[in-house]
Amino acid sequence: MKPRLLCPGPTPVPEETLLELARPVTFHRSAQFRSVLGSVVADLQQVFCTKNPICVLTSSGTGGMEAALTNVIRPGTKILCCISGRWGERWKNIAKAFGAIVIEVTCPYGEANTPAQLAKALAEHPDAAVVTATLSETSTGVRNDIKGLGAVVKDTKAVFIVDAISGLGVMECRTDDWNIDFCVTGSQKALMLPAGLAFVAVSDKGWKRVDEVLTQGPACSFYFDLRKYRENLKNNDTPFTPANTLIKALSHSLARLKTEGMEKVWQRHERMAAAARAAATGLNLKLFARVNPTAGLTVYEIPSGMDGSVLLGRLEKEHGIRIAGGQDTMKGKIIRLAHMGYIDFFEVLAAVSALEMVLADLGHKVESGAGVAAAQRAFSSWKAGA
Amino acid sequence: MKPRLLCPGPTPVPEETLLELARPVTFHRSAQFRSVLGSVVADLQQVFCTKNPICVLTSSGTGGMEAALTNVIRPGTKILCCISGRWGERWKNIAKAFGAIVIEVTCPYGEANTPAQLAKALAEHPDAAVVTATLSETSTGVRNDIKGLGAVVKDTKAVFIVDAISGLGVMECRTDDWNIDFCVTGSQKALMLPAGLAFVAVSDKGWKRVDEVLTQGPACSFYFDLRKYRENLKNNDTPFTPANTLIKALSHSLARLKTEGMEKVWQRHERMAAAARAAATGLNLKLFARVNPTAGLTVYEIPSGMDGSVLLGRLEKEHGIRIAGGQDTMKGKIIRLAHMGYIDFFEVLAAVSALEMVLADLGHKVESGAGVAAAQRAFSSWKAGA
Repeated sequence: MKPRLLCPGPTPVPEETLLELARPVTFHRSAQFRSVLGSVVADLQQVFCTKNPICVLTSSGTGGMEAALTNVIRPGTKILCCISGRWGERWKNIAKAFGAIVIEVTCPYGEANTPAQLAKALAEHPDAAVVTATLSETSTGVRNDIKGLGAVVKDTKAVFIVDAISGLGVMECRTDDWNIDFCVTGSQKALMLPAGLAFVAVSDKGWKRVDEVLTQGPACSFYFDLRKYRENLKNNDTPFTPANTLIKALSHSLARLKTEGMEKVWQRHERMAAAARAAATGLNLKLFARVNPTAGLTVYEIPSGMDGSVLLGRLEKEHGIRIAGGQDTMKGKIIRLAHMGYIDFFEVLAAVSALEMVLADLGHKVESGAGVAAAQRAFSSWKAGA
Repeated sequence: MKPRLLCPGPTPVPEETLLELARPVTFHRSAQFRSVLGSVVADLQQVFCTKNPICVLTSSGTGGMEAALTNVIRPGTKILCCISGRWGERWKNIAKAFGAIVIEVTCPYGEANTPAQLAKALAEHPDAAVVTATLSETSTGVRNDIKGLGAVVKDTKAVFIVDAISGLGVMECRTDDWNIDFCVTGSQKALMLPAGLAFVAVSDKGWKRVDEVLTQGPACSFYFDLRKYRENLKNNDTPFTPANTLIKALSHSLARLKTEGMEKVWQRHERMAAAARAAATGLNLKLFARVNPTAGLTVYEIPSGMDGSVLLGRLEKEHGIRIAGGQDTMKGKIIRLAHMGYIDFFEVLAAVSALEMVLADLGHKVESGAGVAAAQRAFSSWKAGA
């Protein structure tokens, strides 16, 4: 059976990137590697839509989040966390672990944080030094309005930190134009690489805060001290031994994005997402995030009475289709079909087809072929900006 | 030209491990991956000579060092750092960044820390909560007596933290028997993997300290909070998305070590090291670390008046041999020939041969063939335990 991975990370890696990973290991303190790192950072700047330096960290995405946070908070710092799901809560949990005072700006799961609620919270807490948000909340399938939230934060003293881990390279995210001071992503999503690298783009306002916080007692990190990365980046270098094989491989995945162009990359994902959402009607499933769905994955509710683990297990066992279930409180309630990175429409179609067949077999009322037909019609008739 | 990498990390990776890295990415929250992680940790326990859990971190080696430290210190904690080179200083620098009070236990570069000097320092500072040391000090080529240092720390309240990054899997290191409470290593040395993973084995005494420190105010880390790794390890899982392709590949490199057996692995490295040291006479070079040399690399002094960068540059350009120079204050004074992991005697021989030829060409007094002959004689006549 041919396996198909449609989970929200790690995502499939292009063949030429995988082959690079099989090449002999080389030394990282060399002109050759500095040249690779320099061009990778330049290409990443295009993906981030930023002119600012991008710190390349050897860690999971959460390490990138911790790097952004620990460079701007100290015990007692007040921070506003926009929370629309599990990943928004991750910001809160990191901040609390370090002794920051967290003000939660929440919305019901399945909905998005609004600029209005953030503006209200910022007015109530003018002493907040940091605001966090999540571009693509993969736990619920929601897309947050980062542009709108950033506009609210812009003229305050707070720095704006965004988890763009599963959104960057999927949908529009303009780090500089949207006033994002720390934009974080990971390697195993739309950057089409295995897990192991995280990236943080930092604005001038962000660096100013980093340099200020430095004077407020001991650091919260050595390994994630972004000043070290900024300093080394001047020579296209890293402060610690990097996962250099991943960085070399990344250049191949970035070449794909560069060739396509970011606007086209975003449109490709929006089109797949529209098709996956359209499939819901044919599948007779409810979408979980109805109003502001992300373009990186589509979240369907599991029909009441159906065992989600049986559904997911049969999709994989009988059809090789690996999609994700819900996490934590969402477990058993939703299934999450990812369409980001090196996943194309026909793989989404395969997943919809397999879903149709297994759902029907489990007694769900679904007309055979209705889901794939609806997906294809939406894909075929999709128009950019419509 | 055929490139040969003989630097103290990253080291060459076996072909079957590289090929694993080129395989399609799979999902990490699965029974298959948990099975891989479980067997990788079991195999690592053999390499570490420990029965304790081993935390698998996605980071550079320094991330592993920070994980060990930040779980046992808080601002104001007193820590004794045994320093015999740059990597001993790394412990000091991390501890200072977090506001710990550092007592330096130093020795001249090229020499090793002694149990006697540590015993004296511990007697003077009975309130020290942590002692750090370095198994293989790659900046100078020194091997520290971890067994002896551990015996000194054993009956104190302090926990003993060892950087075994470039020593584990090279030479004898018995985590449990030698009273090491936190034993740290990285993937890109004798474990024969690209950089990107770090490992920390923690003793019962170590965990007790971790759980105590937890009560002393905010954490120093979220990403490196070892309690999360301990908890997840019970289900062969990791708290954050791991570099799972590296972990899968590691199983292949570990299979080599397991098949050979750790005693044999250590002997193989000691034998190569003896050959590399013997070559010094033939090369008419002085060894930098004469008394307690590590088995992981051999450090030669650069003849006075010779430009080390020219020497290293010609070795690589003319012969494809990549060895390392000195770091920081040792720059231009030494060259470092690594022989750890997937490097064998004949590659050491190639490096000695190339060294002989380039040294002669640069006007150094060396009899052609003397270095390789000396290396081979030492290799050939080597006896375990002699």
